[in-house]
Order: sequence, then structure tokens, then C-alpha cells
Amino acid sequence: MRSAVNFAAGPAVLPQEVLRTAQQELLDYRGSGMSVMEISHRSLLFEEIIAAAEQSLRQLMNVPDDYAVLFLQGGATSQFAMVPLNLFGRNKTADYVDTGSFSQKAIAEARRFGQVNIVASSEKQGFASIPDIDRQLCDPHADYFHITMNNTIFGTHFATVPDTGIVPLVADVSSCILAQEIDVSRFGLLYAGAQKNIGPAGLTVVILRKNLLGKCLPSTPTMLNYATHEAKKSLFNTPPCFAIYMAGLVFNWVHSQGGVTAMEARNRQKAELLYEYLDNSSLFRGKARPRDRSLTNITFFLPDEDMLREFLALAEADRLHGLKGHRSVGGLRASLYNAMPVTGAERLVDLMRRFEKERF
Amino acid sequence: MRSAVNFAAGPAVLPQEVLRTAQQELLDYRGSGMSVMEISHRSLLFEEIIAAAEQSLRQLMNVPDDYAVLFLQGGATSQFAMVPLNLFGRNKTADYVDTGSFSQKAIAEARRFGQVNIVASSEKQGFASIPDIDRQLCDPHADYFHITMNNTIFGTHFATVPDTGIVPLVADVSSCILAQEIDVSRFGLLYAGAQKNIGPAGLTVVILRKNLLGKCLPSTPTMLNYATHEAKKSLFNTPPCFAIYMAGLVFNWVHSQGGVTAMEARNRQKAELLYEYLDNSSLFRGKARPRDRSLTNITFFLPDEDMLREFLALAEADRLHGLKGHRSVGGLRASLYNAMPVTGAERLVDLMRRFEKERF
Repeated sequence: MRSAVNFAAGPAVLPQEVLRTAQQELLDYRGSGMSVMEISHRSLLFEEIIAAAEQSLRQLMNVPDDYAVLFLQGGATSQFAMVPLNLFGRNKTADYVDTGSFSQKAIAEARRFGQVNIVASSEKQGFASIPDIDRQLCDPHADYFHITMNNTIFGTHFATVPDTGIVPLVADVSSCILAQEIDVSRFGLLYAGAQKNIGPAGLTVVILRKNLLGKCLPSTPTMLNYATHEAKKSLFNTPPCFAIYMAGLVFNWVHSQGGVTAMEARNRQKAELLYEYLDNSSLFRGKARPRDRSLTNITFFLPDEDMLREFLALAEADRLHGLKGHRSVGGLRASLYNAMPVTGAERLVDLMRRFEKERF
Repeated sequence: MRSAVNFAAGPAVLPQEVLRTAQQELLDYRGSGMSVMEISHRSLLFEEIIAAAEQSLRQLMNVPDDYAVLFLQGGATSQFAMVPLNLFGRNKTADYVDTGSFSQKAIAEARRFGQVNIVASSEKQGFASIPDIDRQLCDPHADYFHITMNNTIFGTHFATVPDTGIVPLVADVSSCILAQEIDVSRFGLLYAGAQKNIGPAGLTVVILRKNLLGKCLPSTPTMLNYATHEAKKSLFNTPPCFAIYMAGLVFNWVHSQGGVTAMEARNRQKAELLYEYLDNSSLFRGKARPRDRSLTNITFFLPDEDMLREFLALAEADRLHGLKGHRSVGGLRASLYNAMPVTGAERLVDLMRRFEKERF
């Protein structure tokens, strides 16, 4: 039987090497006689795990020393509240770019705590593109400027980082972190749910410039204050220990593969396989504007629902899983995160080619 | 080599059978070809996992139909904010009993959102006891009445559930859930961090009477509103999937052991082994008032720090781990959660007996 390929948008494919290490160590972490799930978060063993994970991520992303790296819970969705609660301390106003569902969720939540200006939107284009961001658009009095760097549902991304001048740039990088080079120093704050390129669900990584700390709104719950976690190195209360351990293994795996530069090169190779096929297909059709196409989430469509169902059934039979597009847009989506091997993309293109040949 | 015994207060020992199942399935969940960590939270496979886990817990605890069971993130510490944010909707006032560090943390956080009355405290007794709760103490206008059911650090617990009349009783049951029978119908809301009797850290279980929903303060972040999660059956955003899977395995294991009644009987047996020894020891000494002693966290002390260090070193050499008391109180602590075998308690008492014999 051919191996299963998992194109899900998240939780998503993890490196086989990482899963095998976790499996081997699951009952006995490094001779302790205990599972890593059973070890106290105040033990030396776990302190080493979390410190090593942070260090590994800092190296991978070249995180400058004046930035904190936090391991939190609650997903990017919790960040939709934490960002305004922590950064609205000055003028209670922020600029947001609307590039799809997750942007809109972030906007709706931020509006509950202050003034949000939507400075650009691609809604009229069905979110098939990323708006141009002119620095003139930015309100210099805004507390921050927010973008969703990669739009998992629509398959678009910011190919270039907007210049927001002195206003701190905040980005949801859930579906592109570690998949492409990101110059952390261009941002005030980056956040990412782990379940795409980092590890299992239940962990959220936040990277923020430390001079943004300490300005949160008075109503902020202690657990939603970044300063709480920065002061205790993500050990204010019991963290999601196993997810942090898994993330550490994934970070080490990325290092072993050649780091983020090598990951990006391989991700471009996989994405190109699909985009090249889509650009020449008479049956399958991408909607995203070529300039703005995502490296990690490739969205495409078939002419009708019957054909879609038929193709999905064939894909499942071929053990190509998770190709159904997000319920809000339909169609198909192939998520090609770091742990997706090139052969996964090749098998998908191969099936698409055969399907098209039979239909035309 | 003798097997390791893990007396840590949490993250804590998990059933070996559960860890072995997780290990076996780690690379291929039920023939899917994917790890349970890689499976979409919107897939049928995961929907089955979360629905079965909820059902299993409902059966174990006899949860009435008018109560919601939620799988959340952020630990009990997040509940210190979520409880007042969600329940202060009427009079913005609540009664709290102060029985130790975690009570005090809950009180401090609730005070940020409304009026807190400390109706009883055992602080003057060094938290070695649980205050008597007379119904006359309760403010009938309070939005809720809060207790920490089991005090992990001090080794005390509420042996009986206070009668708070019409005021909803809210309890932190992190360190006693599933370890002893709890009549859910006596409570408005119960919450528990998973990392003691439920599963790995990174999951929080909340059980609440549904008529308490929908009254949260306007400033409540969406993710901290119980109604958000109740409406979506804990799938509003990506949940901590692997921790929920593990919790489901633990729930099934508790069923296989005879349910909570059997667990409580075994926990009493383990605790009695230690308490009986402590009551008759001339060297080791418990502080908790016998009536109020915890079933799951047994705290005890040695006459001086040198002896403590010596005993801890002997214990480590004997592979009895995690016996150091909480840093705020010192001494020793043996946490005897469900997954701790009776032989674990026996080995500890055996070592204490040998140590005492050599010293006297």
C-alpha cells in the first residue's frame, strides 16, 4: 500500500523522523523512567527542553536579542485579543489589512477593545489578491499595523513585508512561520499557532520586541498579558509541555534539513510543481493572483461539484488526504508545509494530470 | 533496576497502559497512515475522538444533561479570570474561601473584575486546615461562591461540599477530579487543569451548568467566554487535539479500573498507608489537620534541612522522584494520583521506615 499523504491545513503533517523520536522516547524520556508527559514543568529535565526549544527557534529565525520568544496556549485566535489588549495602551487605535477570514476575525476581536481602521482590503477581489500597502495608508498614531501574512483559506500571502514606518508591524504567521525566511527585525510582533509548521495543536508561539511590553489595557486578564509570560520565561503556570517538546524536535529537524533557507527552497519547488500544472491546466484552475500566491497553501477549483466529489474520492483512494478546500470557499486546497515531502506534491500533480486526461 | 515512581504534583504520572497505547498508535492512528497529532480537528476521526472523550467523562462523573463539558486551554490559571468574567454578570460580587496559594491567586485575579469577599480563611493556621463553612457566611447576592477543593501545595481538601444555598458553587478540582466521587449537581461550575488526573498539560476541563452561560462581562475576550466554546462543542478554534486524545484514553482507563468509585477506594488505600505511617512516626511529621487531609497530595516534614536533603537523595537513588515539597512550603510531598500504583506508596513508606530506623 502506498504511504498516506496529508495535505490538511492544520493540524498538519509532521516530520516522520520527529514522530519516530517521540514514539521511541514516549515511555522513558532519556533514561528518566518517565514519559516527557509526566515530567514536572519545574524539573531540570523540562527546563532544558523549553530552553533548548527557544534557543533552537531563535537560531532558525535569527531572532534579535531585544525580542522575547513566548510559548503560549489558545491558538492564533487568542492572539486576536491579546494583540489589542497588550498594544492598545497608547492611542487605542490600530490599522488592519483585510485579506480574508482570519483577518476579519482579528479585526472583529480588536474592535471590542479599541478603534480599528481597515486601511486596505481585497474583499472585492474575493480575497484572491493582496492589496498594495503604501506607507501613506498608515496612520502614524496607530498603536500597531496588523497583517495576516499568509491566508490559509484563500491561498494568498504577502510576498513583501509592508513598510509601516515607525508603527509596529504585527503579523499572524501561523501558516508561513519557518516555511520561508522572515526578517523578524521588520516586525514588532509575530504570532503563530503551532499546528502547521511547528508541532501539534495546543501551542502558540509569540515573538515580540520587548519594548512593546508593559502597556496593556487595565482590563487585561493576567494570562493574556505578554509581560506575565515574558517575566517567567513561559513558565508562569504549567505550559503545554508535550507540545513544547515536540516543537523542539521539529526545530532541530529544520536545522538538520538546512534551516529555513533550505525549507523555503524546497517549499518553492513543491509549490511550483502545482502552480505550473495549474497554469497550464484546462480543467483545474487557481484563483489567486500569481504575484500573491501562497507558498504553503495552494487553492484550486474544478468546474462543478460532481467533478470535485469524484476527484476527492480518487484522491482518498490514492491515500492523498485533506484536499478538500475550506468549507467557506469550497474547491480544493493542498497545504504543502515543511514536513510535506516533494513526492507528496508529485503524487498530487500526477493524479490531477491523469484525472484531466480522462475528462478531456 | 527498579522502575521509576513519579510523585510529582503535576504534570504527573500517567497510566502505563495509556502511554503504551499512545506509543503504539503514534505514527498511524487506526490505519489512517497519520499520527493523531497530524489529523485535522475538522475530520471525522477527530470528531469521534472528542465526542467519545466527552461522553466517557460524562459517564465517569455522572454529569447531568443540563451541564456543558468543555475542553479548553490555559490551565486552571486561566479559569481564575474566566470564572469572574463569565459569572460576574449580575452583581459583580463573589464569595471566596482562602485555603492556600491557588485560592489566593484565584482571589487576586477575580478582584481585578469585581468585588471579592473572603468569607473564610485558614491562613492563620498556615493553611493546615479547611475552615468550616456555615451557610450564614454566604452572601445570597453573590454571583458565585468559590472554593479550591483540594490544595495541592498544603495537602488539604474539603472533605464535604459546602452548602451555599442558591448561590452557585464554583470549585477548582484540578488535583482531585476523577480521584474521588464528586456530585456534579451540587456545583455551578467545576474546573481542572488536566495534568494531574486527566492527561498531559495543555488541556483544561470545565463542567458548568448551562443556565450560567451568557452573562459574561462586556470586556470578555471571545476565547474567554464559555458560551463561545459551548456553542461549538470545544471546536471554536483548533483545540489541543493530542491532549484531548490522551484524556480520552485516560477516561477509558478509569472505566476499565472500575470507575471513580474504584479509583477513590484505591486512593484511600494509598493515602492511608502514608497517613498511618506519619501518625506513628517520631521523625516524619504531617501538618495538615487529619479531618482535612488530602487524598491525593500528602505533605510531610523532617526536622531539618540536612535530613531533608539526605532523604531526597536516598529517594532519588531508589528512583522515587518528585518528592520535594512545593518551594513555598518546603518539606516533602507525595502526590498519589489515580495512575500511582499502590506499590509506589508502599515503596515510599518502606524507605521512610528504613530512614527513620537508621536515624533513631
